[in-house]
Amino acid sequence: MVQPLRLGLAGLGTVGIGVVKIVQRHADLMTMRTGRPVVITAVSARSKGKDRGVDLSAYAWEDDPVALARRDDIDVFVEVMGGHDGAAKDATEAAIAAGKDVVTANKALLAHHGQALAEAAEAAGRVIRFEAAVAGGIPVIKSLTEGLAGNQIKRVMGVMNGTCNYILTRMQNAGLPYETVFEEARQLGYLEADPNLDVGGIDAGHKLSLLASIAFGTKVAFDHVELEGIGNVSIEDIHLADEMGYHIKLLGVAQMSGRGLEQRMTPCLVPADSPFGQLQGGTNMVMLEGDSVGQIVLRGPGAGEGPTASAVMSDVIDIARGLRLPTFGCPATQLADVCPAKSATPAPYYMRATLLDKPGALAKIATCLGDAGISIDQMRQINQQDEQDDKALVLIVTHKAAPADVAHAMSQFAATGVLVGAPVAIRIEEI
Amino acid sequence: MVQPLRLGLAGLGTVGIGVVKIVQRHADLMTMRTGRPVVITAVSARSKGKDRGVDLSAYAWEDDPVALARRDDIDVFVEVMGGHDGAAKDATEAAIAAGKDVVTANKALLAHHGQALAEAAEAAGRVIRFEAAVAGGIPVIKSLTEGLAGNQIKRVMGVMNGTCNYILTRMQNAGLPYETVFEEARQLGYLEADPNLDVGGIDAGHKLSLLASIAFGTKVAFDHVELEGIGNVSIEDIHLADEMGYHIKLLGVAQMSGRGLEQRMTPCLVPADSPFGQLQGGTNMVMLEGDSVGQIVLRGPGAGEGPTASAVMSDVIDIARGLRLPTFGCPATQLADVCPAKSATPAPYYMRATLLDKPGALAKIATCLGDAGISIDQMRQINQQDEQDDKALVLIVTHKAAPADVAHAMSQFAATGVLVGAPVAIRIEEI
Ligand SMILES: NC(=O)c1ccc[n+]([C@@H]2O[C@H](COP(=O)([O-])OP(=O)(O)OC[C@H]3O[C@@H](n4cnc5c(N)ncnc54)[C@H](OP(=O)(O)O)[C@@H]3O)[C@@H](O)[C@H]2O)c1
Ligand SMILES: NC(=O)c1ccc[n+]([C@@H]2O[C@H](COP(=O)([O-])OP(=O)(O)OC[C@H]3O[C@@H](n4cnc5c(N)ncnc54)[C@H](OP(=O)(O)O)[C@@H]3O)[C@@H](O)[C@H]2O)c1
Repeated sequence: MVQPLRLGLAGLGTVGIGVVKIVQRHADLMTMRTGRPVVITAVSARSKGKDRGVDLSAYAWEDDPVALARRDDIDVFVEVMGGHDGAAKDATEAAIAAGKDVVTANKALLAHHGQALAEAAEAAGRVIRFEAAVAGGIPVIKSLTEGLAGNQIKRVMGVMNGTCNYILTRMQNAGLPYETVFEEARQLGYLEADPNLDVGGIDAGHKLSLLASIAFGTKVAFDHVELEGIGNVSIEDIHLADEMGYHIKLLGVAQMSGRGLEQRMTPCLVPADSPFGQLQGGTNMVMLEGDSVGQIVLRGPGAGEGPTASAVMSDVIDIARGLRLPTFGCPATQLADVCPAKSATPAPYYMRATLLDKPGALAKIATCLGDAGISIDQMRQINQQDEQDDKALVLIVTHKAAPADVAHAMSQFAATGVLVGAPVAIRIEEI
Repeated sequence: MVQPLRLGLAGLGTVGIGVVKIVQRHADLMTMRTGRPVVITAVSARSKGKDRGVDLSAYAWEDDPVALARRDDIDVFVEVMGGHDGAAKDATEAAIAAGKDVVTANKALLAHHGQALAEAAEAAGRVIRFEAAVAGGIPVIKSLTEGLAGNQIKRVMGVMNGTCNYILTRMQNAGLPYETVFEEARQLGYLEADPNLDVGGIDAGHKLSLLASIAFGTKVAFDHVELEGIGNVSIEDIHLADEMGYHIKLLGVAQMSGRGLEQRMTPCLVPADSPFGQLQGGTNMVMLEGDSVGQIVLRGPGAGEGPTASAVMSDVIDIARGLRLPTFGCPATQLADVCPAKSATPAPYYMRATLLDKPGALAKIATCLGDAGISIDQMRQINQQDEQDDKALVLIVTHKAAPADVAHAMSQFAATGVLVGAPVAIRIEEI
């Protein structure tokens, strides 16, 4: 008689209910695919009484997810509560200590405590799986850890926060300023309770740090992700970039070079006709680059009940099938300490500045760039008139420049005394 | 002491040499990732003496791949010779009989003998893996079998023959006729020895039949794939389709409905701005649609030494890691017999016909469509003059129509007596 795989489900929100629905709807399919039934034994959430639109009466209830994690009648603890501390952490630790496998959708938890949890799990002979934590329904963890396991990974790039991509594409398509679209997104329920997790790039940074660990065999190093959110992306820059053939995306890049590990999650210009440039709305996209395979691009829904539950269930089914791997693809004790790159790889930059229309103003700007060792690929001046002044908008695309040199040039711009307002510099990623 | 995983490599062509290079270059990486060394013990090819640009001196040589498959000092038989019968089949059967796991890149072999081989392997407790057989470096078998295992699969679509996509995009971009580009492709070495495997859609059809088996839990049914190659795609239709916002692709579609299993590998019009429409050159793309996850799109190199060897090695590494699954995702003995759909799902169609510019000619065409129960979405008439005659080019986009009705209308067109040459009808897939 085959033993069913018994799940303890902590969290009955968007993702948790999605998991319940798949388990209930596809019992036969999963038995066929795994050779054993997959069942939910017990569940936990904050409010027991809430109507969640599904029948939970067959499942034991636990008020405390830690108690759920320790139950004798579960094999896998499914953590879909969220939060990088508190209940999620306590219950995950308890599950491992009690000899359970863990499936989680919680990137915050793993970005902060992944190393310790992985070591504990591996010492106990248990697995922690987290496909749903990165890029929702896209099987990117599996593709990277297993599908590209014969490659030395060169680079990982991704648009991995659907809310940010929604906001940026909506700004562009509707010509609306950030604040307006942010408010729309809030009203549509697209934003986390703490919106800075989304628009500050933190959520996407968590995801990037997990991919980087697998890709490069290093310990998760979220603290070393260079983070910049989308709050300063102006509709003006979106339009001007578009005219030059670029779109602005919150783009994550992780790459390893002789200079160390580089992890960035920042707004970038990408070619409008590139796969990333064409990505609209809440869809996610990840590019994995390996030394043998070249570039693989994966695209799909990055969030939502169905897609996220699909990813959780792929982890559960792997466990039911006996497919077991270390959390980050190789034993946690063998993951290397991160040596972070001192600064990002040089890249071309888009720059925008408004100048007082005085003789020699443009020359001063060009001189700043020259002094910083930055050479100019394209430069355009657009004269503007308003009630008070004659002004000139200057757009520059540089050749490859070091970020430090760009920062230096920006500060020198300010010192010229010919600027109106603050200048802008945004990195261009040519993919 | 951990045991190394020992490979017997049959085939030292493009893919085989790619495998040798990865095994030699990434010995440490693979030991780190799998916990055990992955080594090549013995190899086989036709000509022993050939200089293959890599050092093979450490490997035992077998003239006969069957003898290689039976060697005591191999654990995994890697079949990268090709061909659906003969050596590839004999050696694969011998390997299974001798208790070896098998990794193959050979879609022809599995499309023809996959069911029997899978049953034999599973009876012997062995696995057959074939990530490299479909869409080269893209981990599409893994994504479908494991990553989307929590889904009922609704549909699989793909552009999976790089040579055909190269030919079609080159025709479009350079404005060249099929024959010219076919000859170019031949000279570039892009075509199989039997080019009909590529341009006849057979190779892509093999791949589609393997995906369909996994997706729907059915026996591989290559015989039921509706196959049409690209040899009749004219540069005229490519241009006219483009003007209407479509590109022509050799597109595979597998879907299961109440009507049965539908498998098609035929030229289709797809929206120019869709992911498939934008796919240029030799790149492959596969879309997997599941009931929970929605649509996942995977894109990457579909052939070549590095990408294909990357896929072979991902299978080898899975075996080294102890990740073992039935060939088609569930036990071969449980795969259902295919009930093929009698005909393809209705779809809009693009039609082109050249008419003698006689009064009432257009009305006759419209009447044929009406009589066949096909309604017209768009219709355009372009008058043309050449030395002899006044002619009119008529372009039609229909509303959704059943393929049988389209075929009927086409035959009725011919009976009107107002046509110059043969009319064309190509299915439109709106993705
Ligand atoms: N939503 C997505 O699309 C998505 C995508 C990828 C990853 N994720 C991740 O998945 C996790 C869950 O997300 P979600 O969107 O499903 O969240 P959610 O809708 O807010 O649901 C959270 C669930 O956890 C329960 N919960 C919270 N704290 C608890 C505690 N201390 N004890 C017991 N139960 C507790 C809640 O109980 P009550 O219902 O009683 O309040 C609720 O059922 C998060 O880590 C998130 O980052 C979500
Ligand atoms: N090339 C790709 O990009 C690609 C992509 C995906 C899948 N595949 C599949 O991978 C397989 C191999 O393709 P390939 O391009 O590497 O082919 P290839 O370059 O033609 O190499 C075939 C190899 O098999 C050897 N061989 C053929 N018949 C043999 C026999 N009877 N006994 C011993 N050795 C024999 C040949 O030996 P000699 O060298 O001595 O002649 C050669 O080394 C095929 O199934 C193909 O469909 C290829």
